[in-house]
Amino acid sequence: MAAAGLLAEVKFNADGLVPAIAQQHDTGEVLMMAWMNRDSIDETLATGRVCYWSRSRATLWRKGETSGHVQSLVEMRLDCDGDTLLLLVDQTGPACHTNRRSCFYRAVRGGKLETIAEPVAAK
Amino acid sequence: MAAAGLLAEVKFNADGLVPAIAQQHDTGEVLMMAWMNRDSIDETLATGRVCYWSRSRATLWRKGETSGHVQSLVEMRLDCDGDTLLLLVDQTGPACHTNRRSCFYRAVRGGKLETIAEPVAAK
Repeated sequence: MAAAGLLAEVKFNADGLVPAIAQQHDTGEVLMMAWMNRDSIDETLATGRVCYWSRSRATLWRKGETSGHVQSLVEMRLDCDGDTLLLLVDQTGPACHTNRRSCFYRAVRGGKLETIAEPVAAK
Repeated sequence: MAAAGLLAEVKFNADGLVPAIAQQHDTGEVLMMAWMNRDSIDETLATGRVCYWSRSRATLWRKGETSGHVQSLVEMRLDCDGDTLLLLVDQTGPACHTNRRSCFYRAVRGGKLETIAEPVAAK
């Protein structure tokens, strides 16, 4: 159990979930935030491939399983109060389902919400 | 209402909250994750000083109000499905209550959870 030491310190919410921030390990770009449960943490540490818990589908969500836009885990970190994970990853292609590199492509600028990144061109 | 366009797009959870990731704007370091409600978003955009909602104290939490470790807002971003905020900030001093720069100071290395950053020395 690679995750034993970690799991003892994670404070899951009432639904048994913990938020996980994915950050590109070398550029520092914050790519997305999703949720993990015990099983997805276990699988991620065991395989080195990031697996979340899909709240909408109520199932393990192996990131990139259908799109090919996988996340290889570089390091898993835990915050001071144990209720948030930070995943340093190597993201293949776009992280966002809109085909943008990051899910955080809207910003408040000049008092308005603006789109600041466009989808990656299809190959 | 500087936040009107944004607030219409934010999907708050059942408690009226949305998670907010704070990232140092120039280094890319992920500092912490906390929660915001409508009022804290409004105040943050109006003042340029980051204000969260404290779930434990059930009150607005003006980051750094007692410690002096304030966060100046550089930009507020919203993710694709509107349920997570990314705050690009300029952090004064440590972001973590343990006096570390980032709250994510524990990492899984060699199958164990290790402390990878020490508290900033007191001045």
